[in-house]
Amino acid sequence: MADNETDIEGQPRIAPDAGAADDARPWGEQTRVVGNRRPRVDAWERVSGAAVFPSDLVLPGMLHAAVLGSPHANARVTAIDTSRAERMPGVYAVISRNTPEANPDWDYFSAHSGKLFYDHCRFEGDAVAAVAAQSPYQAHDALRAIQVEYEILPFVSDELEALKPGAPEVHSGGNRAGTQTYARGNIEQGFSEADLVLEQRYRTASEMHTPLEPHGCVARWDGDSLTVWESTQGVYAVQSKIADVLKLPLSRVRVIGHYVGGAFGSKLRTDKYAIIAALLARRVNRPVKLFMTREQTLLTQGNRPPATMTVKAGVKKDGTLTAIQFSGIGASGAYKAGGTSLLDWLAKDLYRCANVSTELTDVYINAQPARPFRAPGYVQCSWAMEQMMDALADGLGMDPVELRLRNIPAGTQARDDKPYTTDGLRLCIEQGARAFGWQEARAAAAQHSKGHLQRGVGMAAANWYAGDGGPPSTVIVRLYADGTANLNMGASDIGTGTKTVMAMVVAEEFGVDPDAVQIEHADTGTTQYATPSGGSKTVPTEAPAVRRACLAVKSQLLDMAAQQLGRPREEIVFDGDHLRTTDGLESLAIRELDRLRKQKVVVGVGQRQSNPQGVSITPFAAQFCEVEVNTLTGEVRLLRMLGSNESGRVINRLTWDGQLIGGITMGVGYATTERRVLDGPTGKLCNKNWHDYKLPTTLDVPAEVISEPIMLTDEQANIVGAKGLGEPVTIPTAGAIANAVAHALGMRLYDTPINPVTLIERVAAREA
Amino acid sequence: MADNETDIEGQPRIAPDAGAADDARPWGEQTRVVGNRRPRVDAWERVSGAAVFPSDLVLPGMLHAAVLGSPHANARVTAIDTSRAERMPGVYAVISRNTPEANPDWDYFSAHSGKLFYDHCRFEGDAVAAVAAQSPYQAHDALRAIQVEYEILPFVSDELEALKPGAPEVHSGGNRAGTQTYARGNIEQGFSEADLVLEQRYRTASEMHTPLEPHGCVARWDGDSLTVWESTQGVYAVQSKIADVLKLPLSRVRVIGHYVGGAFGSKLRTDKYAIIAALLARRVNRPVKLFMTREQTLLTQGNRPPATMTVKAGVKKDGTLTAIQFSGIGASGAYKAGGTSLLDWLAKDLYRCANVSTELTDVYINAQPARPFRAPGYVQCSWAMEQMMDALADGLGMDPVELRLRNIPAGTQARDDKPYTTDGLRLCIEQGARAFGWQEARAAAAQHSKGHLQRGVGMAAANWYAGDGGPPSTVIVRLYADGTANLNMGASDIGTGTKTVMAMVVAEEFGVDPDAVQIEHADTGTTQYATPSGGSKTVPTEAPAVRRACLAVKSQLLDMAAQQLGRPREEIVFDGDHLRTTDGLESLAIRELDRLRKQKVVVGVGQRQSNPQGVSITPFAAQFCEVEVNTLTGEVRLLRMLGSNESGRVINRLTWDGQLIGGITMGVGYATTERRVLDGPTGKLCNKNWHDYKLPTTLDVPAEVISEPIMLTDEQANIVGAKGLGEPVTIPTAGAIANAVAHALGMRLYDTPINPVTLIERVAAREA
Repeated sequence: MADNETDIEGQPRIAPDAGAADDARPWGEQTRVVGNRRPRVDAWERVSGAAVFPSDLVLPGMLHAAVLGSPHANARVTAIDTSRAERMPGVYAVISRNTPEANPDWDYFSAHSGKLFYDHCRFEGDAVAAVAAQSPYQAHDALRAIQVEYEILPFVSDELEALKPGAPEVHSGGNRAGTQTYARGNIEQGFSEADLVLEQRYRTASEMHTPLEPHGCVARWDGDSLTVWESTQGVYAVQSKIADVLKLPLSRVRVIGHYVGGAFGSKLRTDKYAIIAALLARRVNRPVKLFMTREQTLLTQGNRPPATMTVKAGVKKDGTLTAIQFSGIGASGAYKAGGTSLLDWLAKDLYRCANVSTELTDVYINAQPARPFRAPGYVQCSWAMEQMMDALADGLGMDPVELRLRNIPAGTQARDDKPYTTDGLRLCIEQGARAFGWQEARAAAAQHSKGHLQRGVGMAAANWYAGDGGPPSTVIVRLYADGTANLNMGASDIGTGTKTVMAMVVAEEFGVDPDAVQIEHADTGTTQYATPSGGSKTVPTEAPAVRRACLAVKSQLLDMAAQQLGRPREEIVFDGDHLRTTDGLESLAIRELDRLRKQKVVVGVGQRQSNPQGVSITPFAAQFCEVEVNTLTGEVRLLRMLGSNESGRVINRLTWDGQLIGGITMGVGYATTERRVLDGPTGKLCNKNWHDYKLPTTLDVPAEVISEPIMLTDEQANIVGAKGLGEPVTIPTAGAIANAVAHALGMRLYDTPINPVTLIERVAAREA
Repeated sequence: MADNETDIEGQPRIAPDAGAADDARPWGEQTRVVGNRRPRVDAWERVSGAAVFPSDLVLPGMLHAAVLGSPHANARVTAIDTSRAERMPGVYAVISRNTPEANPDWDYFSAHSGKLFYDHCRFEGDAVAAVAAQSPYQAHDALRAIQVEYEILPFVSDELEALKPGAPEVHSGGNRAGTQTYARGNIEQGFSEADLVLEQRYRTASEMHTPLEPHGCVARWDGDSLTVWESTQGVYAVQSKIADVLKLPLSRVRVIGHYVGGAFGSKLRTDKYAIIAALLARRVNRPVKLFMTREQTLLTQGNRPPATMTVKAGVKKDGTLTAIQFSGIGASGAYKAGGTSLLDWLAKDLYRCANVSTELTDVYINAQPARPFRAPGYVQCSWAMEQMMDALADGLGMDPVELRLRNIPAGTQARDDKPYTTDGLRLCIEQGARAFGWQEARAAAAQHSKGHLQRGVGMAAANWYAGDGGPPSTVIVRLYADGTANLNMGASDIGTGTKTVMAMVVAEEFGVDPDAVQIEHADTGTTQYATPSGGSKTVPTEAPAVRRACLAVKSQLLDMAAQQLGRPREEIVFDGDHLRTTDGLESLAIRELDRLRKQKVVVGVGQRQSNPQGVSITPFAAQFCEVEVNTLTGEVRLLRMLGSNESGRVINRLTWDGQLIGGITMGVGYATTERRVLDGPTGKLCNKNWHDYKLPTTLDVPAEVISEPIMLTDEQANIVGAKGLGEPVTIPTAGAIANAVAHALGMRLYDTPINPVTLIERVAAREA
């Protein structure tokens, strides 16, 4: 989850760990609210339509904006004439490079600085001009009236082509955006120790971001103060970027993002449109709404970059991995955006292996910049590595589960040599296999196969590096005089149920129903600082801060009760929504505290403390699946999938399962349907709508999805014992499906997606 | 300022005074921002129309509501038929006593419980039914289609008539709503020691609340959660009342009141309309807007009750007051609402007098309940007492200023025997008189008089009991990484400039411009608990909490600077927006603190601490005026007025002066134009619009208003040294005008208002 603005690795560790001084004891097993299945606290708003997503927002006098994008994969803007557009009915303003006062400095990434409306559009859809008009239709009509002269330049849109000598250069100096290498042990010696060495190239297609709610915002100026309602994963990141570009003090930029219609990493970045909306709004002195069209979302709002990965691995007869050599090529797109972010991490540390070497090459192509996409790098790598593991198991004649269990890291994470806080990988694989009935299913697959309907069973495992979360985060909890509470946090709920999870934490502490917790969130004007919701770090980052805020409130309640009962504070304990004396003789409801009734409210501030040093706080996952492959139609039917996850404490079992189902569904799309297609002759995107770009639908969800959470709490991780889940649930899916398909067919498919056409082609080739 | 829901006297004193442990040193004289003239931080929003007052709010799908009020002074509802109204176009819902599910328990005041739509309407305008419709016009049309049968009952609308035997009873048991007596010393002995004893009856008319923005709200339900946007002085008070009546947890009721178009005490109460709006909104499942018409505002939204006051006072030849006997009758209206609240307080403690006895009689009449109105009781009492002081001075042949100076309390407030923290009364009178040129003007009045144009000079003095403020209040200040700040407080800015004053406090502490302070306020969902803005206590209550929150932030900044500079914390001090070492060798801007840049924000929580015990923290005022009375037309021209105020530290000199001008203008209305007229035969309000109820306009403001603040800080009061100003500025106005008129005419007018008709009648009577 390598968002460039809020790098998790580079995250500051601000507050010293409270350690022993910390009075926050673990909850233990007997939680009242936490761990239950709770519908979302905002279910009514979401279902009734009362929830105002940024795209729903209508402000008085609001205008609508639209952006003109370059229609070419690579072109220079030589002239632009907006005069016709400016005269069109309903048009209030047109901005472009012709309006220098509305063309601030802009860098896609720090390596590439330029202007917002730049002369050189290196990918299809990059902004050339923008219009604000009375209606969205008038705005889009006006775009067509803008006359632009382009000098069309040669382009390159494939990461392997881009590396060939003589390829068109996206930026002068060559298309190599960066290389990284890593090594431990002695790779040659590792291969020499192996009884079996396999090498294979895998390719994963680019998966495009296309959340239900397109990207966009509404911008309004009040004097010199700007308010932006944006569909974003992190209001504070947007605030900071806008303040930077428009040279405003942070206190003059308020960003609100109460509801977000899906994100998955693409809404971590602050895009040009937010700046354009603000510039237009200032120009016309009215609120301006600017949302990307679906086509623009697909063209410009990020993707999981394509990857070409070569894995060479060696294994002993007993299953011990002796060497892993991983080489990956990823495509940043037209600007440096982490085309190979985290691409080799699973190769480095999922399994124990003394000798590892990796090499990553990040490549420029003439396509939109990549963005973080649910477990960036890990999903691609899992596709390669987990298939390689199965291939090794096949080669050794060993059960794939068994091979993996023999290579569980011995307590220590290899990448930085820190001990894991749990034995989660083993637990996920063992417990998942047992619950799935792995051995039985695997053995029975052949007998369930009939003619063209071939049954297969496969699995894959994963970990995730960022699920520990960490500072900074500040949360404020207020307890009202009637014992109900208000929770104030900056974090966004991007559809994952963050608000509900945090309300449950509050409810647990105060003995109330989660519905009795009023929540204010994701508003830089009214809430506290939080990092963007991404990286599966929202729960482990925010929930401990929420709990700390509750504990700060409870500490004050203890004082009040001690005073009211005339007892030493040490003799008073909490019991749900009551405080009672340890001798059991006296009890008082929170709302009966005289001082609370007078004071009306108690405020607690909680800050996320640093994680303990010297350990690796990591969530783990394993997925198991059973498929039926139709060798005549090429269809892969997903009969059942089981996801086994160790992410520490389960806070809301309902949203936990929801994450799993969503993660698997996304993985199904990755494995079987999704692929960005760039036209060979023009470099233009062929599938820029939901008809041509195939997302999985409800009909593609496996017939049966089983959630098998590992019921433990990771008490070393933080004071709620929870780690991240959102990404671990999608990392192993595609690999598990590929392994099941291979098991069904007795033949491997190395490239995503395994769609009916690719599958039939391979089956036909084998039969030919 | 006896708001019944948030009685300031009964205010809890929660936190022990930090006293010596308090690290908050006084600002001293050398403030950079505080004390200056600052335009409002929301000036742009207010002037441009961008500020959304509750009455401006439009929500999607919103309906408009209207309330049917009883047209009778006293009547029983015997039958009600809403069926025709329900069938009218655009009508969505009608509620009345026929809809028991929309008729919760309601008590105007705890002594009088009943139902929201009660069978017995004891004052004109009390709610009988309500309608929600597509448009306000349809709603009001539908009201006319509601058929109500009333049993008209005898009524009484004058407080003196109401006390007579055989008067119609507003409530069974008689019209005496309450009596209070007070005595100190020996009143008879006091009179026996006097060289001069005078006795006089004074009457003040009822002054009606009629703020620019009528009373009202918008209510919206999201599932079981209610949001109310209300034009209110205290969002937390509204939240609590609505939760009470509708039996909702506090966390399910959010009240927002960002802008308030005037209030003056009438918006301290939560009125029936808020409940009606919420009930209608729930019934129709749409947002509902319900604002009172101007007529309804005047009929139902409160008034300063009429008072009949008899003062008997004794004085020695040397000017020493020996006895004050004060008897006051006030009219609560139809329900117990403090008809005599604070009515005798000025008599008790403005001047030193050993022997004082007072008696108050609160009376029911068939008129709308009284409400707190800018310095309740004090304004009425000042009219009587300050005229009596002048009459005594006349009787002794002593200058009125001199008489008052001879009776300045000797350091101690008589009412509860606590020493004043300042010598403010003396300072206001002496400094005001000097600045006004009292002696010269008084002496020159006769020679400036010509025929029917008689010049007069008068003055009056005042104190105010609630200007000390006090807990509870919690404020949160956040400092952004760029050194700008966010202020979060629950208090309302009812037009007094609270936001600007608080931004100046923050700006003072952080060395930034007040415009760099982002403010979130008056929203129970996003801000911290505050008592309603009223009682001249907002600045002394909130500003210290704001400063404490800033100091909590600064304490963390000191830690950061100490760490970054490798210096002991004690060697670092603040210098505007910098921190420097005490040796002057090193300096660092706040925004250069590494840890702040990483942490992104620092949060400080400030709570208002208790006031010091054993002292009387009191603001003082004196006003001086020069008038020209036209004995032919009865007009009183206000040539100039000077207001001298000791309210501790002046934070914003601009809004300070604004308060003074506003307070004087309101006092001008009280003295010369405003009077509620209830029709004799019907008891109905005659002047229920701005044509018939005469408010002062810009043409009635004195030609010259001089603000003469006493430039001291009341460092015993609190950590900003400020006390309340909003009410002290209006208390002495009417009395000063009356004294000036008396000086001009050589004859006193004892009843308000001194309008041309009453003045001419008296002049004619004298000449006859």
